[in-house]
Amino acid sequence: MENITSKNNEKIKSAIAIRDSASQRKKNGKFFLEGARLCGDAAISGGDILQFFFTEKARAKFPEFFEKILSSAGESYCISEEVSRKLSDTQSPQGMFCVCKTGDKNISADKINHNGKYILLENVQDPSNLGAVARTAEAMGVDGLIVSGGCDIYNPKALRACMGAFFRLNIIECGDIIRFIKSAQAKGMKAFASTPDSEAVKITEVDFSGGVICIVGNEGNGVTCETMSAADAKITIPMQGRAESLNASTAAAILIWEMVRRGA
Amino acid sequence: MENITSKNNEKIKSAIAIRDSASQRKKNGKFFLEGARLCGDAAISGGDILQFFFTEKARAKFPEFFEKILSSAGESYCISEEVSRKLSDTQSPQGMFCVCKTGDKNISADKINHNGKYILLENVQDPSNLGAVARTAEAMGVDGLIVSGGCDIYNPKALRACMGAFFRLNIIECGDIIRFIKSAQAKGMKAFASTPDSEAVKITEVDFSGGVICIVGNEGNGVTCETMSAADAKITIPMQGRAESLNASTAAAILIWEMVRRGA
Repeated sequence: MENITSKNNEKIKSAIAIRDSASQRKKNGKFFLEGARLCGDAAISGGDILQFFFTEKARAKFPEFFEKILSSAGESYCISEEVSRKLSDTQSPQGMFCVCKTGDKNISADKINHNGKYILLENVQDPSNLGAVARTAEAMGVDGLIVSGGCDIYNPKALRACMGAFFRLNIIECGDIIRFIKSAQAKGMKAFASTPDSEAVKITEVDFSGGVICIVGNEGNGVTCETMSAADAKITIPMQGRAESLNASTAAAILIWEMVRRGA
Repeated sequence: MENITSKNNEKIKSAIAIRDSASQRKKNGKFFLEGARLCGDAAISGGDILQFFFTEKARAKFPEFFEKILSSAGESYCISEEVSRKLSDTQSPQGMFCVCKTGDKNISADKINHNGKYILLENVQDPSNLGAVARTAEAMGVDGLIVSGGCDIYNPKALRACMGAFFRLNIIECGDIIRFIKSAQAKGMKAFASTPDSEAVKITEVDFSGGVICIVGNEGNGVTCETMSAADAKITIPMQGRAESLNASTAAAILIWEMVRRGA
């Protein structure tokens, strides 16, 4: 097992590039994880761990996670505290980091469960929102989280916010969102686009039975006009206050809750 | 109207202390706001604005907000761009800042609406969660948000996350949470403590009619044992995945939704 003590080590520099840049993640098909629990979740849930970086301290502090990650990882490196601080995105690094393979999450709408419940995020930008929705979707037992190209699900902040749900959740990337929706509809599924527009159908009046895809849009702009047009209906969460809209992850949570609760 | 061009001006230093420190906010009974929209919301909603700081650029860019804030503010100061950068907590400051009076939000449980729906946050730490719950509570039309002493509702991050709902929402600080709950119960209200414990009563089976207080606890530790004991029932949001819990603001959103939807 190799030791790394230099912050300028090529493997460290390349891990940092993966951590910091969405385009590097896309180009290399890799993503970066930090934290004993999150790296452990990746190992337990069959994530494809290419590289594992750990400090001696972390090895001693999290022996259980350490063993699991070590046995799953392609390559493992013992790093100095200084290198750990360099790799870390947080104030108090735990000293465990992984670089994983993204894998191919592009699945055609023909191959999903046509009686299932799915939440689709279109261009949701805030990584904390992405992570929060993944966490809720997994907890509520949806059949999958579908993300459009504009959602950076491998962002380190998103991965931290989802608390490991990422590895247990069926995540699907759709290249062409309109085509995905139309294929799903051809298989008998319904697609509902959410909007703060109070003229839309209230979610309390929506029939969530059968195969359903609920769509939540970008924080500022909502669901795009094209996607809205492709949907079977525009739906809305009734509001009583003077707020113009709900936070995207809050809206998604209430939609998921209603879809799963009433659509069973 | 005074101009301020020095970062070391006493008024600027004191505003920054209010911005950065919960104990300074408490001690001085003041809080700090940043952003044209948020300062404007304070002015429109009758917030008690003690000081208003603005740049010439901001004045030209947001004339409508500027006039409203100016006419509400006790003192107003035109600041340089350098001072604005110093006051700002964000990457691209808009150049409008207010110092406001917190006012007394300590209301006895005898004085709340005993047929109303309230969400109570106990020691919720993350300012983004606090702000998100305030935003949801206002949008859903709850009668009030009750916070325990452990919730720093005047944190600038919380104020940003709540998108102005702070000024439109009935916020109540309770010094002694147990006493508050017992007084509310004596007036016929029910207090429900939420928990991820699957043995608790499922929220789908809870009677939300009449006066209700739903309690959400700290992100890591949940509702305290003492508060749990004072509640009429422990309630839980049924989960199907392997997640151990929901994010505090997500749990609060689903509780608020169910309480308002079914308790009407």
